[in-house]
Amino acid sequence: MTMTGHHRTPVSLLGLGSMGSALAEAFIDAGHPTTVWNRTSSKATPLVAKGAVHAHTIDEAVAASPLVIACLTTYDSTIEALEPAAATLKGRALVTLNSGSPAGARQMAAWALGQGARYLDGAIKNVPSAVGAEDTLLYYSGDNSVFDEFASTLRVLGGDTVYLGADPDLAALYEMAVGGTLLPALVGFFQGAAALQARGLTAASMVRFSVKWFEMINSVLPLFADEIDRGDYSKPASSVNLFLAGAAHDEELGKEANLDTQWHKPFHDLLKRAAEAGHGDHSISALTEILKNPGQTRRAAGWGSAAGY
Amino acid sequence: MTMTGHHRTPVSLLGLGSMGSALAEAFIDAGHPTTVWNRTSSKATPLVAKGAVHAHTIDEAVAASPLVIACLTTYDSTIEALEPAAATLKGRALVTLNSGSPAGARQMAAWALGQGARYLDGAIKNVPSAVGAEDTLLYYSGDNSVFDEFASTLRVLGGDTVYLGADPDLAALYEMAVGGTLLPALVGFFQGAAALQARGLTAASMVRFSVKWFEMINSVLPLFADEIDRGDYSKPASSVNLFLAGAAHDEELGKEANLDTQWHKPFHDLLKRAAEAGHGDHSISALTEILKNPGQTRRAAGWGSAAGY
Repeated sequence: MTMTGHHRTPVSLLGLGSMGSALAEAFIDAGHPTTVWNRTSSKATPLVAKGAVHAHTIDEAVAASPLVIACLTTYDSTIEALEPAAATLKGRALVTLNSGSPAGARQMAAWALGQGARYLDGAIKNVPSAVGAEDTLLYYSGDNSVFDEFASTLRVLGGDTVYLGADPDLAALYEMAVGGTLLPALVGFFQGAAALQARGLTAASMVRFSVKWFEMINSVLPLFADEIDRGDYSKPASSVNLFLAGAAHDEELGKEANLDTQWHKPFHDLLKRAAEAGHGDHSISALTEILKNPGQTRRAAGWGSAAGY
Repeated sequence: MTMTGHHRTPVSLLGLGSMGSALAEAFIDAGHPTTVWNRTSSKATPLVAKGAVHAHTIDEAVAASPLVIACLTTYDSTIEALEPAAATLKGRALVTLNSGSPAGARQMAAWALGQGARYLDGAIKNVPSAVGAEDTLLYYSGDNSVFDEFASTLRVLGGDTVYLGADPDLAALYEMAVGGTLLPALVGFFQGAAALQARGLTAASMVRFSVKWFEMINSVLPLFADEIDRGDYSKPASSVNLFLAGAAHDEELGKEANLDTQWHKPFHDLLKRAAEAGHGDHSISALTEILKNPGQTRRAAGWGSAAGY
């Protein structure tokens, strides 16, 4: 590869799905000599047109840069893809930006360290089109020398770049802790869209209200976090019983719009179990204590609405 | 009651829970002659100290103002509470601001019209502490003459005040369509908090990331709504299969932090059913079509992960 003369850190990008391609493009746009590799090499073509160097083997890609960023689907697929380049990783900084569990991140870290690589795991908390924006959040954990040395390069991917700590699985832990709201929140939105369509109204007509609603939810998260951290649920803004009272209306909406509301049942069950455990007049955040106790779940499995599954 | 001389519309507020009290306080602060009533009369004391008139019967409260706002728990409890004042409602504007189903709103409207009242149903999409703020959203549906006549008074409760249409159940429909994300989103957040606590980290350390995450979700809602309204899921930003791949990690987090993840199962089941229906490579918003089909749900109840409930 040729240096561009910008004195920017050369970067190699492994994995050119929609996110990987967006990451590579951000580095190209920022003037970093960028080498790209993908198992299906045709994905490299648009990036080469923009100035990237196409490595035909993963070993060639790893050899091209001191900073190697992998954006493959899983930790397992990352290890598998990197095996032919294992010897070349020695002394280089390896950053992974895939989804996965904390256990997967620890396994990945052990493998990377075994090859003599300096390893940093990260997560990008946004969509590909947001890569490179000032407000876009990425967090990392693992080898702090990697973060310190390449922070300005990593910041090319998003202005809100955070180092969480030395444990390599912290980024995956936060990724899952934070990301766990996505599917349930979206299903709630899709249900609302279906209910409006059943009435001849558009999903689009709900968007501005839903946006405000999530802003409202955002405004109360610090209060809930404080209750959870103190373990004190006794001064509720919204009580478990208030949500229990609303559960009945939920079912009416399902009937009204002829919707599948089976996914409500475990939520109503959590509410009932919280009330049974004495949290009825406590903050809804007391559900955290119920979620912590899978043993109790199993005992309760034959009880209440759970019996009807 | 005495007029204050501000020439503001007199308002009567029925129901002084945390939300009703916040509404009454906003009217008092804005200089509206405000009459309050609550079944448990002690709730009126702090409002009387701020200048409200305390009506000792609901009939006295209704008689005091041309605009009567009820903030009781349900439509049923509102009708029950208003029975002794039924004759006095004739010709007055009655606005309800409780939670409930569209069917409940229609029943409430029929009752109110039966008493000769002009009826407007509304919903406040925020917490009591946000009442009166410029950005606070309330929407209304029903008799447009009530909205037109009292819009500036209603705007005292929140600067973002919207009229949805003449059907009295539209506000309840949107309320439920929009509000259906709350409990699932919160449970996702509480699960994340529990996972961090299991690692000795605080829930507070996640808040700033969760806030950004909901902002990201907000940024993609218009795209999803557009897909749903066009019924075209073929150009996914995030596919059903991508979420299916992530489902396995979900369970690992549960194991890692010893959490009850039973509530994930119906979501994973929705994903599997969407894939079975040919939506695997389609946008995650295609789940909307699966939610629309409760008949299919019943047939699928013995299949896949549902069998394990």
